[in-house]
Amino acid sequence: MRILVCNDDGITARGLRALVEVAQEFGEVVVVAPDRPQSGMGHAISIGVPLRLYPSREFGDIPAWACSGTPADCVKLATGVLGERPDLLLSGINHGANFSISVFYSGTLSAAIEGAFEGIPSIGFSLLNYSMEADFTAAQAIVREILLLQAGQPFPAHVPLNVNIPNLPLPEIQGIRITRQAKGRFVEQFEERIDPYGQPYYWMVGRFESQDTDTDTDLWALEKGYVSVCPLLIDLTAHSYLHHWEMIRR
Amino acid sequence: MRILVCNDDGITARGLRALVEVAQEFGEVVVVAPDRPQSGMGHAISIGVPLRLYPSREFGDIPAWACSGTPADCVKLATGVLGERPDLLLSGINHGANFSISVFYSGTLSAAIEGAFEGIPSIGFSLLNYSMEADFTAAQAIVREILLLQAGQPFPAHVPLNVNIPNLPLPEIQGIRITRQAKGRFVEQFEERIDPYGQPYYWMVGRFESQDTDTDTDLWALEKGYVSVCPLLIDLTAHSYLHHWEMIRR
Repeated sequence: MRILVCNDDGITARGLRALVEVAQEFGEVVVVAPDRPQSGMGHAISIGVPLRLYPSREFGDIPAWACSGTPADCVKLATGVLGERPDLLLSGINHGANFSISVFYSGTLSAAIEGAFEGIPSIGFSLLNYSMEADFTAAQAIVREILLLQAGQPFPAHVPLNVNIPNLPLPEIQGIRITRQAKGRFVEQFEERIDPYGQPYYWMVGRFESQDTDTDTDLWALEKGYVSVCPLLIDLTAHSYLHHWEMIRR
Repeated sequence: MRILVCNDDGITARGLRALVEVAQEFGEVVVVAPDRPQSGMGHAISIGVPLRLYPSREFGDIPAWACSGTPADCVKLATGVLGERPDLLLSGINHGANFSISVFYSGTLSAAIEGAFEGIPSIGFSLLNYSMEADFTAAQAIVREILLLQAGQPFPAHVPLNVNIPNLPLPEIQGIRITRQAKGRFVEQFEERIDPYGQPYYWMVGRFESQDTDTDTDLWALEKGYVSVCPLLIDLTAHSYLHHWEMIRR
């Protein structure tokens, strides 16, 4: 099995190394990751900007490239330039959570969604610890467990998985829950500062606010100490609303 | 009615001006748009980067700001810094198509989706003409028609609309169709070049390939000369696949 490993925290991130270590147990690994942190890049791609691919020795003998673009660019370059046609795409392990609408902002998941566009079974992993020094030991055990399941019964290629792992020691993780994306929003707060030239600038410091108290969501699972596994769509059509708009058809 | 107008081609784009002109007929307009082109930015937001808002005289007396960030940042700054709570958010008119999976890559639609996160009825408009000199006359008539419908029967705030307009004179536009996102992919092609220092770099020149011949898609409507109106989700859960994964629950 050929496994393409990507992330959005960049090629030097500990979470990427943790994922590569586990992926190696399951097949031949190739790494294509951004050359710098790309958190919050959503599904951005580089239009009108030339892209670079730098061979990297970050992982010893494992073929690895640092890419000057976004996480989605990494997947496109892996297939389009390096000629990789992986059997599985793994993205992460992200340093930080990707639940609820964070899916839209997440570079980690854009790589997984890009893989699904290409018909590659794809999984994004995130650990609920934003520190660059986070301990990925328990997360690695969870990744291994999910890859063992995937090896036995391959997942549908057009349904990427969003796996969030609570920031707990392994014995304290309660289990795995299949979840839906919780309803919620980020309450935008901006800290205004004045630069040395007297001009204002703003730091975004959004705070997540849940609008969902149900017990089948990614948010609920994580709050209760479960791993959340949420299957994702690559069709953004609001099918159940098509009828609502028929009035404007002409 | 207060109307926030955004785009991804930047504050000087003709498509933005075309949209502002029509929006003015329906309410008080405020413009917050990127200070430079942001095509293909997907739902990127600026994390760890300070943001700027520059007052702009681009639209005469209409309040307008150029933002140093992404389309999604523009919406966040409009609500979070400028205190705007618009009744309607319009994004575009994009210079180029946004059908099928382009929705994921589109900065135009990320602004509309961001509006929907905030509970604001939101519509993204795109014209199937990539030229910065495109003629938006017919597109303006279509925008007007859709805004008249919206004024009479407000659209659900959590269902953003993706409106694509064929590049045709108004009399040749066949009508409006309510559509779903066509299945398709971009075939990645990269043009390799060598820089003056002997190092390779790559230009992405993807080509869209349809995997869908049904007659209810955005692609079909546009090929037949119809305006495509596709309602979008802000919940990426693949609900119909939740059962598939129950095997890994523990």
